[in-house]
Amino acid sequence: MSEKLTLGVAARLSTYLRILTQSRKQGLQSISSQEISEYANVNPTQVRRDLSTFGKFGKRGVGYNVDSLLNQIQGILHTGGVHSLALVGAGNLGTAIVTSSIFKDHGFGIAAVFDRDPARIGEKVGDLIIEDAANIALRCKELGVVLGVLAVPPESAQWAADQLVAGGTKIIFNYTETLLSVPEDVTIHTINPAEEMLYALYFYLT
Amino acid sequence: MSEKLTLGVAARLSTYLRILTQSRKQGLQSISSQEISEYANVNPTQVRRDLSTFGKFGKRGVGYNVDSLLNQIQGILHTGGVHSLALVGAGNLGTAIVTSSIFKDHGFGIAAVFDRDPARIGEKVGDLIIEDAANIALRCKELGVVLGVLAVPPESAQWAADQLVAGGTKIIFNYTETLLSVPEDVTIHTINPAEEMLYALYFYLT
Repeated sequence: MSEKLTLGVAARLSTYLRILTQSRKQGLQSISSQEISEYANVNPTQVRRDLSTFGKFGKRGVGYNVDSLLNQIQGILHTGGVHSLALVGAGNLGTAIVTSSIFKDHGFGIAAVFDRDPARIGEKVGDLIIEDAANIALRCKELGVVLGVLAVPPESAQWAADQLVAGGTKIIFNYTETLLSVPEDVTIHTINPAEEMLYALYFYLT
Repeated sequence: MSEKLTLGVAARLSTYLRILTQSRKQGLQSISSQEISEYANVNPTQVRRDLSTFGKFGKRGVGYNVDSLLNQIQGILHTGGVHSLALVGAGNLGTAIVTSSIFKDHGFGIAAVFDRDPARIGEKVGDLIIEDAANIALRCKELGVVLGVLAVPPESAQWAADQLVAGGTKIIFNYTETLLSVPEDVTIHTINPAEEMLYALYFYLT
């Protein structure tokens, strides 16, 4: 598979990867398309179709081998290895992000955490020392980071995004509700639970 | 429009609603399909097609009226009004959720927050008093809550989900990586930033 995946397939494979990563962590050795389907909120036929496209057939009654399917999907998504990210904001959300294993489990390492609050700079959060947000651009260049995460108050979001962009960041995960302006070669992914709730609520109400 | 929307349309309309809600908050009165497109990471033709389906045409050079489009999409998604949710977990993530305005801005009110830690019960977080997680089922019934949010450690997630289900919750937003088992009439939405990062990284790398 060298051709580019469609948005939908890439999104579903990312979901399967998340489920397989967690299954492995919970000690499961095999998983059925039915189980993947339930955890992914994707219908089982779609799951089997997605996986069979890549020549991977689960054994009837046994299911897919978790490790092997996981490696195969990582290969398709080119997302094996460790990817560094820079986190801006060491408040409640930032601290939750640093201390969660979710990123690490999926190969994302937090290379640096920044805050503007002089009282916080130099403090420890998880295994990291909070750095001065004034140095974001410089440090991102040094670290070669292309992924940034914004966990700052909404009014600081554009400023923080500008610093990340100046440091060479190409993908920014925006946990604030602020609508950000960035150059064309930078992608913003807004993480807004309210949006997902509206979506879920629609299907519940209709 | 009384027929049910497809998954894709409902997802995009939820995204547009998030963008319009924030545009209004930032004081914008009109917005172009190009701007919606950029904030939503959806191509402009798709945005115009989605919106024209519902008989709403933006004026060339002026764009869409934010308030009117927002009301119209709320009508289509049946998501106007206020929806109560129960939050389990008052740690860093739970506190970030309670103190953020993101939910409130979109019509989601946090009706109750629960924790298992005796030291936290009775403490104030935002405007709420942390309640004993032992009472989740009882309190959710009293409050008539159908939306639950899990912001607990992974090892408590299944227990907390069981309590929410016992209390009548039908949609659970799971911020933990734990794969949850729930009855068929309950939907789990897993909020996992790593999954979104894998997806974004694929498009960046290819």
